[in-house]
Amino acid sequence: MSYNANDPRLTSWVEVPSDSDFSIQNIPFGICKMNDGFHVSSAIGNQVIILSALAENGYLKEVEGLDDSTLKNEFLNDFISLGKSVTSKVRETLSKLLSVGSSLEQDAATRKAAFVNMESVEMTMPVRVGDYTDFYSSRDHATNVGKMFRDPENALLPNWLHIPVGYHGRASSIVVSGTPLHRPMGQQMPAGADAPVYGACKLLDFELEMGFVVGKDTKLGDRISVHEAEDYIFGLVLFNDWSARDIQKWEYVPLGPFLGKNFGSSISPWIVTLEALEPFKTTSPAQDAPRPLPYLQFEGDKNYDIDLEVDIVPPSGESKTVCRSNFKFMYWNMCQQLAHHTVNGCDVNVGDICASGTISGPERGSFGSMLEISWRGTMPVDMPDGSVRKFIQDGDRVVMRGFGTKDGVRVGFGKVDTEILPVK
Amino acid sequence: MSYNANDPRLTSWVEVPSDSDFSIQNIPFGICKMNDGFHVSSAIGNQVIILSALAENGYLKEVEGLDDSTLKNEFLNDFISLGKSVTSKVRETLSKLLSVGSSLEQDAATRKAAFVNMESVEMTMPVRVGDYTDFYSSRDHATNVGKMFRDPENALLPNWLHIPVGYHGRASSIVVSGTPLHRPMGQQMPAGADAPVYGACKLLDFELEMGFVVGKDTKLGDRISVHEAEDYIFGLVLFNDWSARDIQKWEYVPLGPFLGKNFGSSISPWIVTLEALEPFKTTSPAQDAPRPLPYLQFEGDKNYDIDLEVDIVPPSGESKTVCRSNFKFMYWNMCQQLAHHTVNGCDVNVGDICASGTISGPERGSFGSMLEISWRGTMPVDMPDGSVRKFIQDGDRVVMRGFGTKDGVRVGFGKVDTEILPVK
Repeated sequence: MSYNANDPRLTSWVEVPSDSDFSIQNIPFGICKMNDGFHVSSAIGNQVIILSALAENGYLKEVEGLDDSTLKNEFLNDFISLGKSVTSKVRETLSKLLSVGSSLEQDAATRKAAFVNMESVEMTMPVRVGDYTDFYSSRDHATNVGKMFRDPENALLPNWLHIPVGYHGRASSIVVSGTPLHRPMGQQMPAGADAPVYGACKLLDFELEMGFVVGKDTKLGDRISVHEAEDYIFGLVLFNDWSARDIQKWEYVPLGPFLGKNFGSSISPWIVTLEALEPFKTTSPAQDAPRPLPYLQFEGDKNYDIDLEVDIVPPSGESKTVCRSNFKFMYWNMCQQLAHHTVNGCDVNVGDICASGTISGPERGSFGSMLEISWRGTMPVDMPDGSVRKFIQDGDRVVMRGFGTKDGVRVGFGKVDTEILPVK
Repeated sequence: MSYNANDPRLTSWVEVPSDSDFSIQNIPFGICKMNDGFHVSSAIGNQVIILSALAENGYLKEVEGLDDSTLKNEFLNDFISLGKSVTSKVRETLSKLLSVGSSLEQDAATRKAAFVNMESVEMTMPVRVGDYTDFYSSRDHATNVGKMFRDPENALLPNWLHIPVGYHGRASSIVVSGTPLHRPMGQQMPAGADAPVYGACKLLDFELEMGFVVGKDTKLGDRISVHEAEDYIFGLVLFNDWSARDIQKWEYVPLGPFLGKNFGSSISPWIVTLEALEPFKTTSPAQDAPRPLPYLQFEGDKNYDIDLEVDIVPPSGESKTVCRSNFKFMYWNMCQQLAHHTVNGCDVNVGDICASGTISGPERGSFGSMLEISWRGTMPVDMPDGSVRKFIQDGDRVVMRGFGTKDGVRVGFGKVDTEILPVK
C-alpha cells in the first residue's frame, strides 16, 4: 500500500501547536526570501522549511528534477511545472522526514540549515501570475447583489444558473499578505448628481474568496474536461478581491469591473495542495433546476469543507470577526470553472490564478463582503472600540483565515492580512 | 541640431518599394526566429535586420547596454526595459547605418550576416504580454453597438463620455500574425429558446483595433498623468480582437466579456515606435460636451492619422476590403487611456498591451467589425466569388493593415493576418 501523507495518525517530531494550520498532514508550498535570495519552502508548525538545504544534504535525492535553479527561485512556477508526479513525491518525502523517528530528526546540522522560524522570514509572492480570472460562483453572494442593485424578485440574472460567470482581472496588482495597499482614487457618480466627481474611494470593501493555482499548461485550442480538471489544479490560496464599490458602480456597465478592482488583490503566501485538501471534500449544492449543460456535469464530491473567517483589525487593535463562511457554499466548483474557462480553447498556464468570487453563505453572519454585511451601508457593524464600520477605513487591517478540520487534523492556509493606507 | 530619423529626405541604400510600410523613417522592432534561436530585429523594405549581427561587427557600440542576452532574446521586454534613451538611440543608429553612403553599405560581410529576406524568416510574438487591457474608445463603435442592442435614442451609456471605458482581457491567448485560430465552442442562448445550447460559435467576428505596448514600469500605487503618458508608451501594433458574438451576448452580463473574447487575439509582429509615428499626430475629436474631469484633460495633438483597412480573404482567394477606417477616429486617446488606467494606482509593466477597442469611423464603409458592417447580419456583404458574409466563415483569413503617409513617406505596421480553422 502506498504511503498516505494525509493519514491522521502521522505525528511529527517538530512541535505543532494544536491551532496551527501547518500540521504534518498539510505540507504547503511557498517562497521565502532570505539574505541569500529566494527559496522554495514548506511549513510545519511555526517553522519554514528551506528545500534547497534539505537537497544539499541529500534528503531529496529520491526525487528527480530538483536542481538548484528550481529550488532557489523567486517563484514556484518552475517547481509546479515539474508536474504532480514530482511535487506529490516531494510532499510525501517531506512527510516522511518530518515524522517521528526519521533520520532528519537526529541530524542537527541539517535541521539548523533547513528550518527557520516563521516569524523571522519574509514570505513573498508564491507564483508569477500570468493571467488572473475571477469567478462569481456563490449563489448567495450573487443573490444578495442582485437584490440590492437589481430586482429582489429576480435577483439572479438569466445566465447565472447555466454559466460559472467569470471575468478577467489584473494579474500585476496581485500582492502577497503583508503588503499594504493605498485607498484608490477614481471617478464616482454621487447619487443625484448630474456629473461624476474625482476623489478617494468612499466605499472600500473586501471580498472573501479562495483562488486556485493552475498546475499544468494547456495549448491554445485545447479543452479541459470537468473530469480532468483536478489534474490541472496545483493548490489553493486565500484571496481578498479588494473592491472600490463607488468606482465599480459607475464604471462597470457594460464591460465589467476595471479600476474598481485592479488597484490590488491580496493572497496568502502558502499554497495548500489539492492532495492535502482531499480529506475535506464534500458534496456540492444540488444543480438540478436547471441542470447544467453536459460539459459542466460532474460526478463525486467536488466541493471542500473549509471554514473561512474575516476579521477587521482597526488601528485600536480591537478586532472583530465580521464573517464566518465556508468554501463548501460554492454553487459552481473549481472543476466546472476550469472546464468552462477552456471550453472555447482558451489556454491556461502554470501560475495562473482563478478566484472563486465572494464566498457568502446563506445567513448574514456568513456574508463575505461589507457590501452584504452592512447591506449597502444600511446596517453598520459595531466594533469593540466603539467605532462603526459600513466599509473599510484607512488604517484598518483585513485578515482572512481558512482551514479544514477532520479526524483531529487541521489543514489550513494561514492568513491573508492587508492594511489599508490613506490615498497616496 | 540633433539627428532626425523622421526626416522625409532620408533615403536608404536598401531598396524600399514605394508601397512598403518599412521605409527608412519607420525602423520598427520585432522578434524573428532563426535556426540559432530568437533575435531582436528591425525591418526595412522587405529585409529583416538582425541586431546581434550588427552588434557583433561593432556597428552598435555607441549604444550602451546591448548585450547578447538582450539581443538574442525570445521577447523584446528586456530591450524595451533599457528605456527610450537607449531604444531611440538604436533607432537613430540604424537610420544612419541604412542611409545612403554609410559604412555598412560597403561592408558586404556584415550585410550578409545581418540582413534576411522577410519572406524567409518567422516573426514571433514581439513581447511577453503581462497584462492585456482592452478599451472601448471609438464613439462611432460604441454608438453603433448601443443602437443595435440597447436604445437607438440613447445609444451611449451614461459613463461613456466621462470614462475611457476598459476591461481586462486574456494575455495568454494573444498570438502573432500567421497563427491560425479555431472557431470556438461555447454556450449560446438562441433567440426564443428557454435554455442555452452548447455548440460552435455561429457569429464569429473580428474587431479592428490598435494596441500600444507599455515601455516603462510603474509601481503599484503610482499614477501616470496624461502629460507623462507618452514616456510610458513604447510603440503600437495592429490588434484583431476576435469576438464570438453569440457566446459574448449570453455571458457578458454583468461582469463583461470572457469566453466571447479569450479564445484568441491577434497582433502584428512589428512594433512601430511612438517616435516613428510622431509625424502622423493629428487633432482629436472635441471633448467639450461634456468636458472630461481634469485628470483626463490634455493639450496638443494626441491622435494619429493612420489609415486602417480590413480584408476578408475567403478560401477562393478572391479577397474583399470590407473596412477602411483611421486611428484618428478615436474619441479617447492613448494618453487618456493610460492616465485613467493608473489613476487608482494600478501598476503597468513593460510588455503590457492596451488595445483601443474597435476603431469605427462615422460611415458604414469605415465600421471596424462585421457586427456593424452587416448590421447584426441584416446587411450581408457580397464577396467577389459570389459568396456572402454576415460573419467570418471557416477557412476565411482576416487581414488588417495600417500605415500613415506624409510628405511622401510611408510608415506602416505590415499586417495581422489570421486564418480561422474549423472547431477543434
